[in-house]
Amino acid sequence: MLVNGKPYRTIWLADDGRTVEIIDQTLLPHRFVTVGLRDLIDVVTAIKTMQVRGAPLIGATAAYGICLAVAADPSDQALDAAYDMLLASRPTAVNLRWVLDDMRTRLRNRPRDARAEAAYRRAAEICEEDIAINTAIGDHAVALLQEALAKKRNRGPLNILTHCNAGWLATVDWGTALAPIYKAREKGMSIHVWVDETRPRNQGMNLTAWELGQQRIAHTVIADNVGGHLMQHGLVDLVIVGTDRTTARGDVCNKIGTYLKALAAKDNGVPFYVALPSPSIDWRIGDGVNEIPIEERDGSELSRMSGRLPDGTVVQVNIAPENSPMANYAFDVTPAHLVTALVTERGICAASPEGLRRLFPDLAQVDKGKAYA
Amino acid sequence: MLVNGKPYRTIWLADDGRTVEIIDQTLLPHRFVTVGLRDLIDVVTAIKTMQVRGAPLIGATAAYGICLAVAADPSDQALDAAYDMLLASRPTAVNLRWVLDDMRTRLRNRPRDARAEAAYRRAAEICEEDIAINTAIGDHAVALLQEALAKKRNRGPLNILTHCNAGWLATVDWGTALAPIYKAREKGMSIHVWVDETRPRNQGMNLTAWELGQQRIAHTVIADNVGGHLMQHGLVDLVIVGTDRTTARGDVCNKIGTYLKALAAKDNGVPFYVALPSPSIDWRIGDGVNEIPIEERDGSELSRMSGRLPDGTVVQVNIAPENSPMANYAFDVTPAHLVTALVTERGICAASPEGLRRLFPDLAQVDKGKAYA
Repeated sequence: MLVNGKPYRTIWLADDGRTVEIIDQTLLPHRFVTVGLRDLIDVVTAIKTMQVRGAPLIGATAAYGICLAVAADPSDQALDAAYDMLLASRPTAVNLRWVLDDMRTRLRNRPRDARAEAAYRRAAEICEEDIAINTAIGDHAVALLQEALAKKRNRGPLNILTHCNAGWLATVDWGTALAPIYKAREKGMSIHVWVDETRPRNQGMNLTAWELGQQRIAHTVIADNVGGHLMQHGLVDLVIVGTDRTTARGDVCNKIGTYLKALAAKDNGVPFYVALPSPSIDWRIGDGVNEIPIEERDGSELSRMSGRLPDGTVVQVNIAPENSPMANYAFDVTPAHLVTALVTERGICAASPEGLRRLFPDLAQVDKGKAYA
Repeated sequence: MLVNGKPYRTIWLADDGRTVEIIDQTLLPHRFVTVGLRDLIDVVTAIKTMQVRGAPLIGATAAYGICLAVAADPSDQALDAAYDMLLASRPTAVNLRWVLDDMRTRLRNRPRDARAEAAYRRAAEICEEDIAINTAIGDHAVALLQEALAKKRNRGPLNILTHCNAGWLATVDWGTALAPIYKAREKGMSIHVWVDETRPRNQGMNLTAWELGQQRIAHTVIADNVGGHLMQHGLVDLVIVGTDRTTARGDVCNKIGTYLKALAAKDNGVPFYVALPSPSIDWRIGDGVNEIPIEERDGSELSRMSGRLPDGTVVQVNIAPENSPMANYAFDVTPAHLVTALVTERGICAASPEGLRRLFPDLAQVDKGKAYA
């Protein structure tokens, strides 16, 4: 997608063929800065501090983390250590485990001197696969947008609400929840996006609004508290969000606050869609509320805010009372019955075991033995 | 309540017997500053800029606005002009209209040279009535807290979630939703308050957390997105909020986002209580969602944040991308069926026409002719 009119991906190789370049997303929307990751520690730090974030981009970055690790030391021991460090860097995104398993399995059976090259080749493939998945999701989901606009007798704009950032910045390119929005724009549809601020890290305000602005798509930022009121008054035609992990029965783990919007959508008859690449499906579990561990992050993410002073200087301020404790749960789980449909790269299905199995008979089989009750 | 160990009210007369002193709540939690209001314009500005806020405190401040206006010019014309300016200062709080009607009716039939004194006397009474109402609400609601703690076999803490600030800072003293919490502390009950940050103006982070900290009550600040997750995991025993306007059938207009928490409470079987002084009941209307006009405030309240730099200097920063539009709806309406009970100064009742009429047969009669359908 475009940044100041120039096309970018969120991750790419530097000219040296080894260093991994990323956009430092912690500096957006105030500054656009790219950073070179030179070793495994750089990669783990980038994931932990959320210079890169979003389940698909975390996966792609972890793949390159394995590349940098084996380029430095191709031993089994180094590979296993890199696997463990990367897996522990963020607990929720199931893509991360999928990518790491994929990379390790492929590299283990290769001679050591061929591992680095094979790793870089596979990491590049994973990036291309992510883009292919996201454009397919966009193509399937844009049909839902067209249907919704037709229901309004094509009197636009179609008002779409999204939470957090499941845009191109959360993936290698295109995004998941925002892919259909970019496709809709290509088709000349009249659309407008309500962007939830997404406290405490403000991914909506900092990233989604910024990337929609860069692509010149009409949008309005709102506080996370506002969506219910908008839905009560017919100002939201549909909701579409991404997911970090979806269970085999269709429970959706996504950025904290998603569940509240799903409740409001249900209460007001507003369709609630989830865009998900199949690597974010966790076939091992069914009950998301009780089985997905929810990451708790530092309270300072709530109390410290970055912003620009009138002269343009970017500073961090403390917005909290002295001594008030903060709690910072990063995700919540939206039960499947609140989800109108899941949009995957293979098409649209009900958020149910049957719906997912119909689209993914091959993947759903893998863990059939230990499938959720 | 206490500020740095010293008892305060939110509004009082200066030693000159005329100037109205308030706490500038826009500077909290970073600085505690009191301000003298010397004329009607000062009062209207204080209400509009939210140096004072909270339906009961807006009412009390408006009463003193009338005092300052008639002290300067006791004519009917000046009284009417003050009435109109104050009524337009904030659109949602129904107390404001109630107080202004009360003040104007009482002053109109008096000789002009007796108006100022009568106005100050009545404003002082309104303040005392507010305190009496709030302590009564606290006494009734603390019984609900005791019941909830007994259900946990007295294994505290009792976890109470609140949204926005309905504490002593929103009233003359004690607060509405927080009054039972202060009463519970007096009784030695083990309580802990989840404080919703309450974007965009952060009244939870800035005011509720600050006032609970000052009274040394255990609390944790959370993003507005978190309450649903906490309720899914049994970490909230009950919700209690205030209200700016409640309709004759029990629909509750309160700070934007309240509706989302009520939905989550319903979905998880968590009791959802609303503390309301009877002056905040609007007997003229029934359907809150369709009949209460929702104030839209400036988008800069969403994009600008005040905070402390590491050296303690308080600055305002812009947190938004350049050129992204913001929308700022200040309130929403929670339909009566999501409210477990209303707690008033006369006791507890169902959020229904019958419930409210039973407790307030005298007030409900007033507008019987034009009562909601």
